[in-house]
Amino acid sequence: MLFKQLFEPDSSTYSYLIACPETGECAIIDPVLDTVERDLGVLQSLGLKLTYTIDTHIHADHLSGARRLKAMSGSKIAYPAIDELPCVDIGLEEGTAFKIGKIELQPLFTPGHTDHHHAYLIHTPVHQMLFSGDALMIDGVGRTDFQSGDSKTLYNSIQQKFFTLPDETLVYPCHDYEHRQISTIGQEKKRNKHIGEKSLEEFIEIMDGLNLPYPRKIDFAVPGNQQCGECPENIPEEYRGPCEKYDQGH
Amino acid sequence: MLFKQLFEPDSSTYSYLIACPETGECAIIDPVLDTVERDLGVLQSLGLKLTYTIDTHIHADHLSGARRLKAMSGSKIAYPAIDELPCVDIGLEEGTAFKIGKIELQPLFTPGHTDHHHAYLIHTPVHQMLFSGDALMIDGVGRTDFQSGDSKTLYNSIQQKFFTLPDETLVYPCHDYEHRQISTIGQEKKRNKHIGEKSLEEFIEIMDGLNLPYPRKIDFAVPGNQQCGECPENIPEEYRGPCEKYDQGH
Repeated sequence: MLFKQLFEPDSSTYSYLIACPETGECAIIDPVLDTVERDLGVLQSLGLKLTYTIDTHIHADHLSGARRLKAMSGSKIAYPAIDELPCVDIGLEEGTAFKIGKIELQPLFTPGHTDHHHAYLIHTPVHQMLFSGDALMIDGVGRTDFQSGDSKTLYNSIQQKFFTLPDETLVYPCHDYEHRQISTIGQEKKRNKHIGEKSLEEFIEIMDGLNLPYPRKIDFAVPGNQQCGECPENIPEEYRGPCEKYDQGH
Repeated sequence: MLFKQLFEPDSSTYSYLIACPETGECAIIDPVLDTVERDLGVLQSLGLKLTYTIDTHIHADHLSGARRLKAMSGSKIAYPAIDELPCVDIGLEEGTAFKIGKIELQPLFTPGHTDHHHAYLIHTPVHQMLFSGDALMIDGVGRTDFQSGDSKTLYNSIQQKFFTLPDETLVYPCHDYEHRQISTIGQEKKRNKHIGEKSLEEFIEIMDGLNLPYPRKIDFAVPGNQQCGECPENIPEEYRGPCEKYDQGH
């Protein structure tokens, strides 16, 4: 398995390139519109052609690169099936593995940050890697105060779907704001400041007290991502840069 | 490959169990005397018999479990060859891979924390794992004020032997004092508070200013570890617990 972690600095988003060397198929989990050209350059340097993009949820803090990558490379768009987005080529759901060549990705339905959020797990004797999206991050969790977010639901998702995995399982989140790149299930169970060794009641109290600012891109990112990363009409001038390069005809 | 990270809380030491499922051979990197019974229990629960212990250096903060594990399970003791310890069965040196069944461990001569320190690298298309010992830790480095430690030497070891590895390489350190379990080369290059994006001069200044306390076990741990984890005569009463269970005849 070929693997690369890619970073988009404006929204502090990690995208993940996963490729099967035997078949040449490859996917990017949570690509960002702003870094589509960079990602295609990485693929080219590795001699790969993008087969799929896969999103964990409808992001509110950046525009997905899914639609643009499809236009530029012919990749198919995979999203949680529950979102029922017309722009999606492949619906993913828990219980049905998604294959990137010979690599099996297990979707895990993990609502709470959003009501349709899915994480993706590679669990073989050789690799145990969790792409935790915005559900579980390094020393934190995704906010639950927008997009049908619900703290109790997120607590249960993390406890039941993530914290039951082996401690050694590698955790690759969708974001980190302090340039951390990786964690493990054991580490987050022990020391995550929001949910590590916390009761449901403690977790809800912590989440209720976060007082986070209004997400600066949510008003255009959510409608844009409901179209798999289209640039919507109402996008403010300061965020138009990545959109202007994008041929809206695709 | 079967892999487990094991923790000894008194010295905050991580030991690493690596096993080759094809041959059944297995090793523990940096085992601790205090947790020998726990480690043997883990091995038993996995149906494994210990083949090797491997140390990264002569530790000053805990007694190695190498000698005791040999006595209890028949494992062979591997240490950096440069230490020339009479108790060692297998001398390791950079340039010669050490095989745990079909798994190849590459010793990397990385002095600076001690003058004989070696890290161990697994670098295959499937796994890139660095067991960085006390040279590189998560958001820090090993102290350089004892045991022939030298800041300039450590800086060069990390820059030349570690920071030239791919960013995705997983970093498994010998210690963490905040229950963090893992990092990557990319993360440490970017944000390690001692050496990340620091010049040699900045690094030396940081290391010179650490003002760390005198290592509480060094006076017995170093002579004990020069015998691969023998309990020396001068061990203070409060640290005798793990020694009293140990049959000194072995």
